[in-house]
Amino acid sequence: MSGNTFGTLFTVTTFGESHGPAIGCVIDGCPPGMVLSEVDIQPELDRRKPGTSRHVTQRQESDTVEILSGVYQGKTTGTPIALLIRNEDQRSKDYGNITETFRPGHADYTYWHKYGIRDPRGGGRSSARLTAPVVGAGAIAKKWLFEKYGTTFKGCMSQLGDIEIPFEDWSHVPENPFFAANASILPQLEAYMDDLRKNGDSCGARIDVVAQNVPIGLGEPIYDKLDAEIAFALMGINAVKGVEIGAGFKSVAQKGTVHGDELTPEGFATNNAGGILGGISTGQDITASIAIKPTSSIRTARHSIDKAGNPVLVETLGRHDPCVGIRATPIAESMLALVLMDHALRHRAQCGDVVVTPPPIPGSR
Amino acid sequence: MSGNTFGTLFTVTTFGESHGPAIGCVIDGCPPGMVLSEVDIQPELDRRKPGTSRHVTQRQESDTVEILSGVYQGKTTGTPIALLIRNEDQRSKDYGNITETFRPGHADYTYWHKYGIRDPRGGGRSSARLTAPVVGAGAIAKKWLFEKYGTTFKGCMSQLGDIEIPFEDWSHVPENPFFAANASILPQLEAYMDDLRKNGDSCGARIDVVAQNVPIGLGEPIYDKLDAEIAFALMGINAVKGVEIGAGFKSVAQKGTVHGDELTPEGFATNNAGGILGGISTGQDITASIAIKPTSSIRTARHSIDKAGNPVLVETLGRHDPCVGIRATPIAESMLALVLMDHALRHRAQCGDVVVTPPPIPGSR
Amino acid sequence: MSGNTFGTLFTVTTFGESHGPAIGCVIDGCPPGMVLSEVDIQPELDRRKPGTSRHVTQRQESDTVEILSGVYQGKTTGTPIALLIRNEDQRSKDYGNITETFRPGHADYTYWHKYGIRDPRGGGRSSARLTAPVVGAGAIAKKWLFEKYGTTFKGCMSQLGDIEIPFEDWSHVPENPFFAANASILPQLEAYMDDLRKNGDSCGARIDVVAQNVPIGLGEPIYDKLDAEIAFALMGINAVKGVEIGAGFKSVAQKGTVHGDELTPEGFATNNAGGILGGISTGQDITASIAIKPTSSIRTARHSIDKAGNPVLVETLGRHDPCVGIRATPIAESMLALVLMDHALRHRAQCGDVVVTPPPIPGSR
Amino acid sequence: MSGNTFGTLFTVTTFGESHGPAIGCVIDGCPPGMVLSEVDIQPELDRRKPGTSRHVTQRQESDTVEILSGVYQGKTTGTPIALLIRNEDQRSKDYGNITETFRPGHADYTYWHKYGIRDPRGGGRSSARLTAPVVGAGAIAKKWLFEKYGTTFKGCMSQLGDIEIPFEDWSHVPENPFFAANASILPQLEAYMDDLRKNGDSCGARIDVVAQNVPIGLGEPIYDKLDAEIAFALMGINAVKGVEIGAGFKSVAQKGTVHGDELTPEGFATNNAGGILGGISTGQDITASIAIKPTSSIRTARHSIDKAGNPVLVETLGRHDPCVGIRATPIAESMLALVLMDHALRHRAQCGDVVVTPPPIPGSR
Repeated sequence: MSGNTFGTLFTVTTFGESHGPAIGCVIDGCPPGMVLSEVDIQPELDRRKPGTSRHVTQRQESDTVEILSGVYQGKTTGTPIALLIRNEDQRSKDYGNITETFRPGHADYTYWHKYGIRDPRGGGRSSARLTAPVVGAGAIAKKWLFEKYGTTFKGCMSQLGDIEIPFEDWSHVPENPFFAANASILPQLEAYMDDLRKNGDSCGARIDVVAQNVPIGLGEPIYDKLDAEIAFALMGINAVKGVEIGAGFKSVAQKGTVHGDELTPEGFATNNAGGILGGISTGQDITASIAIKPTSSIRTARHSIDKAGNPVLVETLGRHDPCVGIRATPIAESMLALVLMDHALRHRAQCGDVVVTPPPIPGSR
Repeated sequence: MSGNTFGTLFTVTTFGESHGPAIGCVIDGCPPGMVLSEVDIQPELDRRKPGTSRHVTQRQESDTVEILSGVYQGKTTGTPIALLIRNEDQRSKDYGNITETFRPGHADYTYWHKYGIRDPRGGGRSSARLTAPVVGAGAIAKKWLFEKYGTTFKGCMSQLGDIEIPFEDWSHVPENPFFAANASILPQLEAYMDDLRKNGDSCGARIDVVAQNVPIGLGEPIYDKLDAEIAFALMGINAVKGVEIGAGFKSVAQKGTVHGDELTPEGFATNNAGGILGGISTGQDITASIAIKPTSSIRTARHSIDKAGNPVLVETLGRHDPCVGIRATPIAESMLALVLMDHALRHRAQCGDVVVTPPPIPGSR
Repeated sequence: MSGNTFGTLFTVTTFGESHGPAIGCVIDGCPPGMVLSEVDIQPELDRRKPGTSRHVTQRQESDTVEILSGVYQGKTTGTPIALLIRNEDQRSKDYGNITETFRPGHADYTYWHKYGIRDPRGGGRSSARLTAPVVGAGAIAKKWLFEKYGTTFKGCMSQLGDIEIPFEDWSHVPENPFFAANASILPQLEAYMDDLRKNGDSCGARIDVVAQNVPIGLGEPIYDKLDAEIAFALMGINAVKGVEIGAGFKSVAQKGTVHGDELTPEGFATNNAGGILGGISTGQDITASIAIKPTSSIRTARHSIDKAGNPVLVETLGRHDPCVGIRATPIAESMLALVLMDHALRHRAQCGDVVVTPPPIPGSR
Repeated sequence: MSGNTFGTLFTVTTFGESHGPAIGCVIDGCPPGMVLSEVDIQPELDRRKPGTSRHVTQRQESDTVEILSGVYQGKTTGTPIALLIRNEDQRSKDYGNITETFRPGHADYTYWHKYGIRDPRGGGRSSARLTAPVVGAGAIAKKWLFEKYGTTFKGCMSQLGDIEIPFEDWSHVPENPFFAANASILPQLEAYMDDLRKNGDSCGARIDVVAQNVPIGLGEPIYDKLDAEIAFALMGINAVKGVEIGAGFKSVAQKGTVHGDELTPEGFATNNAGGILGGISTGQDITASIAIKPTSSIRTARHSIDKAGNPVLVETLGRHDPCVGIRATPIAESMLALVLMDHALRHRAQCGDVVVTPPPIPGSR
């Protein structure tokens, strides 16, 4: 209840700080009997890890995961699965200048006031590094959902700063460091990022995620609606300031005669709903978008105060992502997977293991 | 865990269906010793209730609330507070034609597939009528937060369909049925709604809500962040498709040198954060916006299927709001109040009753 | 989290005070599609209700239950089931003399210190009257478990004060007001109670409960073990001071060569375990016993203090059970049923709907 | 919710199996600012660890604890505290003969049926080895409660097999391997244990625990009563079959004129309540007793079945405690401490940080 556990029946409790000895998590509630080892988890961690291009932080972490429990002879036993990732490249001295001041846009100010103490090394607990255990847990959720229902997850960046990235094809996504579903725009994105870095500035991004082959019936209204839980999961990712499901804010200007997705014997005709009606999955693709704010830690000097309330100028040195959105796609996919996993278990608790398979439905893309 | 309880320490468990004998809720965790009676709750219910203008549903409900427990000699005792609202104007026959078909954009399809049974009368459990108990509970949360911290809540409609409503002054909000903070635009809004009704169509809306005088330190990272919980609460309101905190989706195109709110000895200079950093309240105004989709229940015939999968045309008769967003402002305020109340209690569980009062800060408006 | 909700997936949230307008509960998580109406619930309430013999409180309550929600056309819909019981016979003046003093052995002292306020009328929230909603909820759990697994529940009094009640046959239980599984001992029990009443004193009791035809596999170690949850449920009943599972405290003096129940191809040979091993049900009868202390509210004057700390003598007038254990059997059965129901749902969340049927096993009795 | 998290606000999530690479836990909700390092935790682990006398298992484990997170510059930060203990002495081959059979009285049978898979090495997840992380977490709870309220914890063995151990003085407890508060009886206990070992048999024990200087007001009726939570915590310890609070089962034969503890201006006159009334702490000593069954893993051959249902004889080799009760005292103290810690935080969530200090009260011993 202190906020470090995600989920209700498939729970992920994380621990660790950016520059502590280790980070990790305990996953409770995983169904027994699933084949699982580190090779199922490491590839997802590798998609998220730092240092893989010049456009992200140069911190060098192998993010090697160790399974400490919950697996016997290569299969899950139904007991807690603990994942451990040792931190390898902590250069805490890089951050020494910020222990007494509050970076604008950063959690320094609020952690200090809330707890009366904070670990300033690399942002401590508030660091985006803490998304690594979640991605590890998400890999387990993705595997189970795929084996049980054929559910798959995809994501891409659809906007970088003020550059919109038209969707071309999913096949481009793993081919570039931006997770862009578009090949021709890459030189423009790279030039934009190089320029930002040179100016000691940062930018935001918009990320789209999709879950496909989702069973009908997931979601627990009237509060733990599937869309409410997805909003919770995605808004909780570091730096996220907005979440949309389906048509999102475009719904405001739509008429009812347009927005409501008509049904045909072959399935839904459109997907303004984003795959969720009344807080319950429809069997269509679940689609969501998030707005990620520009990184707070930038080299450009900004006005702030120190702990005593005196005005100071703060420049953030150290190694930081100039756009945290660049590595956010696998994180957002993982959070979406954790929500669906949790609700798959919640659904069968109350309604049993009967799941309605959706008819073949035209994809959202 | 079946999704009908909102909150962790200040919990609201609701019950009831649109056309059942009664709706209500049980509020657990209210601090003892607060003066409370129905007169503290009824005015908030009256702000939300139907039938107050020609632009909302004409269902006649007094929404009279009865406190069944938890209050002794006019004060809360720390035991559960049960609120009961009898339904008075159920005309279930109005809905007879939809028992065998699924309305596009409505929860009919998903409730049916999830549970194998659904109460079709007025939408059953999925009806927006179920926001009434939440508004009742919200009134209690608002009262406690105001008495303890001076916290206040406001909200207004900022867009109706494709009409943006420029903010003029909060004083206009209680003076019109749209909750618009603008007097001059009212004729345009009324004409727009009259036209919609005539055409048997519906529209969406955008609602802004603000909490002021929020103590610093509320929010439980790294999952139960205050912004994540607000997103959960607001996305869970019927028909909401998008949630923004602070600058929201505008953050994507902002540079880090612009977005991160600078601090001065007198407080924050701007409020792109919407009053939350690292998932914890900063003491600034908390600002959020939601996108509400157009009402699904419209008179215009639309393509759908029946339970057997055969194509049908569905026209929704009965009494419906042509824009559910019109009555959404007090609901959104209540959900925000419930989140802050819950986190006020969670904060003091771990950190004690010490709360940092923010310095006087230029309001977001 | 304020303690008025019982269960995790099949949750029962109760409200009300002994002398308030009503008591009741909201049950969330009931599987959909089960036939249910008041006639399924009322008989269980009638087994518990006061005024049915001269050996219990003479308060006259019909305990008529009304289902407010969650049922449509005679079947559960999967949405919350609210039960309402109006209080009918509140004579609060009977209790006027205890508003300023603390009865020895009663919750007066602790409620006052915890909350700074208490409702003294009939014990307020701490009254055993609040077991009525639980019995109502238990009736629903019993029905579902019986229809799904054939599970049944029984209970009897095995000791009244210092009189041990030898077990003869279950058929005697509904035939006497003591829930004794023994007919010949009844005159002795009645004389004992009459004597107590005459002396203004009270006594304790020991109650045994049994669940039969329990599926194998219920229980969630290593903390939410089935026996731990049963202990929680039974110790939480008013006036309970001890709980045993299976051989209970007799286990201490047993050798390992005696205690551990041997297995044969036909099932377990004995049942010292009480049907639970490692916190998980074995398929044997689940057996538990509870110790109930003597009623605190007695006519005999006792030493105590008032709110100001001054010594006083307290005699409790009003109507009270001279042995709260007499009506405790249906309550204990209900709590046991609620635990099994909750764990049936929890089991299938993680492990699916596959349940192992136990082989025919010699009953515990 | 899968049962591996203990507590509501001060949560302990454990992981690991007896013969896996490591065991440990994540503690969430610890108040910030408390001085903490491994030296505060290790001594409690050492009280519980195996191999310290000939009367317990000879498995050699240093149980060295490493704090992985949640502490900065020697103080808790309010973020999760992860404790890691590497397993050092796993001789899994010792257990090879039990992978296909079910030991009488052991969790083998139920884990296998529940999950369809089980880790048989040393009992896997069901091993009493998993109490080590709980004792680590309990050390943190004890420290905070002592610093905040002066609360202390004690425990002793009061019966070994059929030998009752008269209480003499707490000072004896740390001086003998049995945690007996009696020096003269030690030769008898040692002879009893030596005899058991020689015969390949095992025995049960009774353990008493006491918490002193408990603030008034802890406990959250009407379900999360302090006594109910203690019963849950203690019954959940491996091999426990019974729990008593205060007078326990003796209450049954007590009259109301005896049982109810009278109050005087100087405090309570007696403590039959065991420090809890109405589920809320009175400020008196909290006293509880548990019954621990004899160890299931014994060398004597017993009848059982294999996975295929065929009859077999099972002798358990490997290293086992002939009386698991011998090491249970620090575990029971820890569980009690975790319950009080959790309820201290829950109390101040609803009622604020005001705690009533009890008057000086004659101790229970």
